[in-house]
Amino acid sequence: MDKSLLKENERIDDLQCKGLKIIQNSKGFCFGIDAVLLSNFCEIKKNAKIVDLGTGTGIVPILIAGKSTAEKIYGIEIQKEVADMARRSIKLNNLEERIEIINEDIKNIEGLIEVNSIDVVVSNPPYMEPHGGLKNPEDLKAISRHEIKCTLEDIIKITSRLLKHNGYFYLVHRPHRLVDIMFLCRKYKLEPKKLRFVHPNKNKKPNLILLKCIKAAKPELKFLNPLYVYGEDGSYTDEIYEIYGKESINSY
Amino acid sequence: MDKSLLKENERIDDLQCKGLKIIQNSKGFCFGIDAVLLSNFCEIKKNAKIVDLGTGTGIVPILIAGKSTAEKIYGIEIQKEVADMARRSIKLNNLEERIEIINEDIKNIEGLIEVNSIDVVVSNPPYMEPHGGLKNPEDLKAISRHEIKCTLEDIIKITSRLLKHNGYFYLVHRPHRLVDIMFLCRKYKLEPKKLRFVHPNKNKKPNLILLKCIKAAKPELKFLNPLYVYGEDGSYTDEIYEIYGKESINSY
Repeated sequence: MDKSLLKENERIDDLQCKGLKIIQNSKGFCFGIDAVLLSNFCEIKKNAKIVDLGTGTGIVPILIAGKSTAEKIYGIEIQKEVADMARRSIKLNNLEERIEIINEDIKNIEGLIEVNSIDVVVSNPPYMEPHGGLKNPEDLKAISRHEIKCTLEDIIKITSRLLKHNGYFYLVHRPHRLVDIMFLCRKYKLEPKKLRFVHPNKNKKPNLILLKCIKAAKPELKFLNPLYVYGEDGSYTDEIYEIYGKESINSY
Repeated sequence: MDKSLLKENERIDDLQCKGLKIIQNSKGFCFGIDAVLLSNFCEIKKNAKIVDLGTGTGIVPILIAGKSTAEKIYGIEIQKEVADMARRSIKLNNLEERIEIINEDIKNIEGLIEVNSIDVVVSNPPYMEPHGGLKNPEDLKAISRHEIKCTLEDIIKITSRLLKHNGYFYLVHRPHRLVDIMFLCRKYKLEPKKLRFVHPNKNKKPNLILLKCIKAAKPELKFLNPLYVYGEDGSYTDEIYEIYGKESINSY
């Protein structure tokens, strides 16, 4: 293993999928089930051009590259240290030709990626509003979790600019922001088409949502069956095991 | 029983709650679980002034009158024959002092009910868009089911006009219209605050939604635990039995 790829407090984690690995900072924001569920929720056609807004460690581009035939995935990350770590993970996986990490504010991305050119935009953005329980706004974890550097509206607005007509937008977020999400997606012509709620178990309310929007599509929201993470015995449900073990995601 | 209250094809059904009864037309739109769940989902304070937009047979005002200490409930119904039937049900239950059925287009209601004066607006509106699978637009059932005489936007706009500052809006609707509902509620300053999904059973996606909005409230949507109608053995769940048997609804 090429230890020179690692900086202080960093470690390499095995993604248990086709030998893929990721570098994470033990003191920073580490990827969670959200990123795995988001990647699995995407439908990616052959040679698709994809953008991941707020890519963090690059987990979503790496999983999508591993599980699909996407041609090019741009991961946009505003934090320099985090973008650098993501680039090293891309190198570690020999994915430099398919994944490009761009260290830039998503609000400046239009000069770098052509508008109306992208097949699929994905995002696992900060879930919390700017000042919700916030301690240190310069903290790396805080920037990943709170809307400090960009708001939900920024993400949705930019997604709408980047996507082709009828392009797909996949988002993972928290249920308490559902009104904001629906309102802003409709406002920016990203029509919500499929919604899946993720519940900790069958008796609990949802704590995550997975949403597919299609740019400029007709209104009509389809609900998918709920996804339960844990069964009654407290272990993962079969569906969660399947998602983690899946070697390829759906195509369209 | 005063049979003179009944017209052709009409029957009297017992609501199994405090002796309440309702007149329904066997060939028209009969109330369903939606109306019962909506009534039960409402919180009604003492002496509240309430409006039910599109009251139909008057089922929601009758249940709310029976289960709360509301002072006055206005049921608005555009169809003359249906409003007449609702009035006869009100009389049958001796509720003329607390419930008033107004046979009017909700779009003309502002001259009849003062704006910013109502504590709670409820609605179990037509679920279908104007032309979705529609055969005969003058059919009584069609008017109850399709947005022929009023749209969802009409209902939400008028609700916002009638409600007091911080007044409550309770809506039952279909999940496939969730984006429309969220978008329009936010547009007209009725902030969605509580959302409950109703599922046929634990393994099926939701087929109804219950939503509480508060006029001019701050954004933050709370999810309630899902409500399952049937258990694994195909019989009603305990919660559904409780709701049907409940003699009073929540106050605030």
